[in-house]
Amino acid sequence: MDKNRDKGQDKQQIKPYKKDAAYSYTLGAFPTYELLKARPEIVQKVVVHSSYTDTENLKNLCNNCKVPMEINDKLLNKISDKENCYVAGVFNKYSDELRADRPHIVLVNPSNMGNLGTIIRTTVGFGIYDIAIILPSADIFNPKTVRASMGALFRLNHHLYSSFEEYQTNFRNHDFFTFMLNGEKPLTIKDCPKSKLFSLIFGNEATGLDDSFLKVGTSIIIPQTPDVDSLNLTIAVGIGVYVFTNQ
Amino acid sequence: MDKNRDKGQDKQQIKPYKKDAAYSYTLGAFPTYELLKARPEIVQKVVVHSSYTDTENLKNLCNNCKVPMEINDKLLNKISDKENCYVAGVFNKYSDELRADRPHIVLVNPSNMGNLGTIIRTTVGFGIYDIAIILPSADIFNPKTVRASMGALFRLNHHLYSSFEEYQTNFRNHDFFTFMLNGEKPLTIKDCPKSKLFSLIFGNEATGLDDSFLKVGTSIIIPQTPDVDSLNLTIAVGIGVYVFTNQ
Repeated sequence: MDKNRDKGQDKQQIKPYKKDAAYSYTLGAFPTYELLKARPEIVQKVVVHSSYTDTENLKNLCNNCKVPMEINDKLLNKISDKENCYVAGVFNKYSDELRADRPHIVLVNPSNMGNLGTIIRTTVGFGIYDIAIILPSADIFNPKTVRASMGALFRLNHHLYSSFEEYQTNFRNHDFFTFMLNGEKPLTIKDCPKSKLFSLIFGNEATGLDDSFLKVGTSIIIPQTPDVDSLNLTIAVGIGVYVFTNQ
Repeated sequence: MDKNRDKGQDKQQIKPYKKDAAYSYTLGAFPTYELLKARPEIVQKVVVHSSYTDTENLKNLCNNCKVPMEINDKLLNKISDKENCYVAGVFNKYSDELRADRPHIVLVNPSNMGNLGTIIRTTVGFGIYDIAIILPSADIFNPKTVRASMGALFRLNHHLYSSFEEYQTNFRNHDFFTFMLNGEKPLTIKDCPKSKLFSLIFGNEATGLDDSFLKVGTSIIIPQTPDVDSLNLTIAVGIGVYVFTNQ
């Protein structure tokens, strides 16, 4: 791993984020600490601004993780779009295998990076550590997604699938619950479906899940007043995860 | 009302949004329809782009509401920061009185307009129609807040208070529940506090509620794993409202 890390450093000149690059950034101290604590083996280096005041703690953590730390204002300006970024981490992108013995969240074509990050933060907050993303999707490694997740991205397993069918055939033992505005079963506290090994499946922000998902497992609707068009996706996921993990 | 509306039109030249102006905008067709349906009496006029295709429906609604509609590309460009805005409403700002016989949401110093709008959309979605905002706060009438609420802002009563004490003395019959990371009572589905007339109180995104709120009614914590710093404010409100309205 150290060998790869050094190789990466020598060969590449760090550039502003690109979706097809093999590396990305944590922008800000909090997600960078999370990165170092959860996945030190993927970190190429940590970059610190010369005016950052809490260097000592960060340096100790970097030393423990055997990650180089450098002070480089120019590089920080280059990779950050905000002025007040004092710490960044450069890390290699990765992919995980989902655990077959644990519940999953499945996001079909999520399109907004902020939403995707917030959903990751929420699911980790409620103890779900495996998330499936059906492509096309917002970029999970974009620094905006990473920042919105507050670094929780590094705490869970994620895997990208080219279709829902590809996901489905891999996890036949899971109970599938599809969240849809025309779902059959209202999600109430008194009568929530019971399952130990569940997949909670959510559609795109604008279009939701199409009607073909009505036949995939149990379709669920979160009851809501006619005074709104729908709930925000992140809210729907938050409530679904809270209720299913709270049994 | 019509008199005031005309007066407003003659005197003022519509300008890009300002916090201290007496009027604001709905940007986009959906929130503009919501505005017309929920509060026609506050609408000065509706502005439509010359390339908007669904003018007929909108014109009928405007006629029914006695609201003037004009095609004005230049004005739309001026008040909208996005290029793809084809419909806008110009409306007079207002303030409501909260109903003393219904449950409330209380937001103490919310700082993000997108969050504030999403929270309004969520609470209306779960049937709470009264929201108190403790100042300082993100601007509830900023077009960004209105857009994030998807127009749900016009469906509920909102009132701004200069301090929490001011709110508290007005609603002594409400059961107060404060959502705090050091709250005493975990919010679980099986053992949720029962109340018919409740105020759910949430703090600022970054700082939460300070410890003085531990003595205001019952303090609540939404149980979460140590792998996240905290839940996103909108998620915490969404879960709190869902659980309390689902009894």
